[in-house]
Amino acid sequence: MPEQSTPASPLDVPEGDPFGPHNLPYGVFSTADAPERRRVGVRIGGHVLDAGAAALALGSPYAQLLAQPSLNPLLAAGRTAWRDVRRALTAWLTSPAHREDIEPLLHPLGAVTLHLPYEVADYVDFYASEHHATNVGRIFRPDGDALTPNWKHLPIGYHGRSGTVVVSGTDVVRPSGQRKAPTDPAPVFGPSVKLDIEAEVGFVVGTPSELGRPVALADFRDHVFGLSLLNDWSARDIQAWEYVPLGPFLGKSFTTSVSAWVTPLEALEAARVAPPVRDLPLLPYLDDADDEDPGGFDLRISVAINGQVVAEPPFAGMYWTAAQQLAHMTVNGASLRTGDLYGSGTVSGPETGQRGSLLELTWNGRDPIELAEGKRTFLEDGDEVTLTAWAPGPDGTRVGLGEVTGRIVAAG
Amino acid sequence: MPEQSTPASPLDVPEGDPFGPHNLPYGVFSTADAPERRRVGVRIGGHVLDAGAAALALGSPYAQLLAQPSLNPLLAAGRTAWRDVRRALTAWLTSPAHREDIEPLLHPLGAVTLHLPYEVADYVDFYASEHHATNVGRIFRPDGDALTPNWKHLPIGYHGRSGTVVVSGTDVVRPSGQRKAPTDPAPVFGPSVKLDIEAEVGFVVGTPSELGRPVALADFRDHVFGLSLLNDWSARDIQAWEYVPLGPFLGKSFTTSVSAWVTPLEALEAARVAPPVRDLPLLPYLDDADDEDPGGFDLRISVAINGQVVAEPPFAGMYWTAAQQLAHMTVNGASLRTGDLYGSGTVSGPETGQRGSLLELTWNGRDPIELAEGKRTFLEDGDEVTLTAWAPGPDGTRVGLGEVTGRIVAAG
Repeated sequence: MPEQSTPASPLDVPEGDPFGPHNLPYGVFSTADAPERRRVGVRIGGHVLDAGAAALALGSPYAQLLAQPSLNPLLAAGRTAWRDVRRALTAWLTSPAHREDIEPLLHPLGAVTLHLPYEVADYVDFYASEHHATNVGRIFRPDGDALTPNWKHLPIGYHGRSGTVVVSGTDVVRPSGQRKAPTDPAPVFGPSVKLDIEAEVGFVVGTPSELGRPVALADFRDHVFGLSLLNDWSARDIQAWEYVPLGPFLGKSFTTSVSAWVTPLEALEAARVAPPVRDLPLLPYLDDADDEDPGGFDLRISVAINGQVVAEPPFAGMYWTAAQQLAHMTVNGASLRTGDLYGSGTVSGPETGQRGSLLELTWNGRDPIELAEGKRTFLEDGDEVTLTAWAPGPDGTRVGLGEVTGRIVAAG
Repeated sequence: MPEQSTPASPLDVPEGDPFGPHNLPYGVFSTADAPERRRVGVRIGGHVLDAGAAALALGSPYAQLLAQPSLNPLLAAGRTAWRDVRRALTAWLTSPAHREDIEPLLHPLGAVTLHLPYEVADYVDFYASEHHATNVGRIFRPDGDALTPNWKHLPIGYHGRSGTVVVSGTDVVRPSGQRKAPTDPAPVFGPSVKLDIEAEVGFVVGTPSELGRPVALADFRDHVFGLSLLNDWSARDIQAWEYVPLGPFLGKSFTTSVSAWVTPLEALEAARVAPPVRDLPLLPYLDDADDEDPGGFDLRISVAINGQVVAEPPFAGMYWTAAQQLAHMTVNGASLRTGDLYGSGTVSGPETGQRGSLLELTWNGRDPIELAEGKRTFLEDGDEVTLTAWAPGPDGTRVGLGEVTGRIVAAG
């Protein structure tokens, strides 16, 4: 028999790969031969490690947290466990001593199905980009101040529907609902004609908190496990008619897409940045001026429609940090549960090409954008939206965030 | 030994008892000798039947649904199962043939601990009383129209925090937060000084629905299992400062109290009433004018502070029905999960003594009410609020709803 060349190991991830061993995001996958058996996976390059099987094979004490159909047990285990498990995974995936045990437990990304990686408890959405809020204010309230008087005093947020959070790749059915233009005599019903993207970052709570006990700014990393990209699909016409006085409801609740991969905060040490200078003094529970942890993350997001990049929103410029959002969300004593998810709000930068929604990019349809397929004001049936992002990693590397995709399907 | 008189059986419920065998609400309880063992219970008079134990003792096929620590399996089983289980329970609790088996499985109400009876999935709160919405509009927007232009076209609602829904009897910690009077130069932080009641009815979803598939008005009873009283505690000062533009958040999310007892819709057949005549034509998905099921429920609510009744809001006058709320909530394709809970919104009638919040009863503090302990504008620490209600039952009986109580505890 002719001599075969040794195939490259999936563990030999090329230098510069944003999913190298410095990243190691967590997800939940299944394989075609056992579609019902969901398992915790860790992404390494173009492969997924069956983390529970690895823990069992190596006699690891973390098998109990990893040999599970969901990330929830790991999320609930707390910060010390998160650190220890990450250390163990790093050793398994980089030490030659483990190579023989680990290699058979790697599945090519293209051969697995990825699932929603955790059970979403409560879902909250914030509104933390000054550029986004200013743009929206100018569009919807052209005669008033762009920002409401409370905007720079507190991170404005509201609860969304956790039951309709779906994993990347899930089709998005165009929602129907009521809309009414100011000049219409009465509302009309039909499929939304202003279906939009909201490019956001979602933060996933691991450690719960007690009812009646606020979580301080400094305790952010004790509670939040990691983050992922999030697309808070929005039907602008439905939202505009319904949202006064109690806020967005059906204009948002039909679907929210999250990445299949949760990037642990520990992978984002090199991405820490200070938030922008705040214009107004903050109440003590939100005042991060002297905090050791600056609170911001330098994430460079890219928004593509049908493969064509339409915006590159910079997360580093968000006015409110995730730590401030957590402190605010709990300052009234509201408790946290494992699996709570909160979105940053649409990420928009100061430049036109940095806006995280079509509402802003087309100025509510006034200035269509050009795609290869033609002009777009809002999304059309068949459009596929993909959010991707990376952050600075250690030693000049990049940390890739898992993508979020969704294709628009005609209203049923 | 002297002859003992036979004690009355707990099954001999006095005539006129609103928790007689025509009612049979479901809850979850534990006993002092096994505090960790939560069990489905059915209330009969002043006792609780261990429903799972009864099903097992009688060899019932419903043991699988009832021998559980939560109502969720029963909720998920669907309408046919709900009917069959109710029939079985009625037989067990009324037939002399079962008396000997059943009596030992009854626990006096005072000897059990009641728990949150189901795992709350998503929590939505509506705003469906025209009297309440008009009063609130007049108080908060004195220079504008009391009702927003959308109010009579759609049941306005928003998502709340499901993780802070608690069972009746749980203390309510006064929330702290930001507030700002129009004349204040900047917001201040501290315990709410306008802590309020919202007397509502909560509807509990049993049968889930599929993402992308609206639930029609006529399918309400296929999805909603039952209802209970609900107190959506509200911090009016926090709410007033935060709620523009994205709706209530921390002013509501600290605690929502629900009754320990869920009354099945089947117990409320005699309480069906037609909703008020609507002023404006409704879009087809909300139009119930020709529906066989009128959609309303004649529930007479009573609001007491420290035992003194301060209001008697009539549920029959709600402008929007629970069926319309369900149809609206799903018309955009949002799916339902077992355990979804939605509140009617504060129940207020046209009369002063029928208002379901202190905001309305005291006109935002302008007209204090008199209690034995002194005047009240909003709730003080130590105040205990109790909601009770009854509905017309078969043959002139009354169907009691389980009470909702909560005591205000000083901010931590």
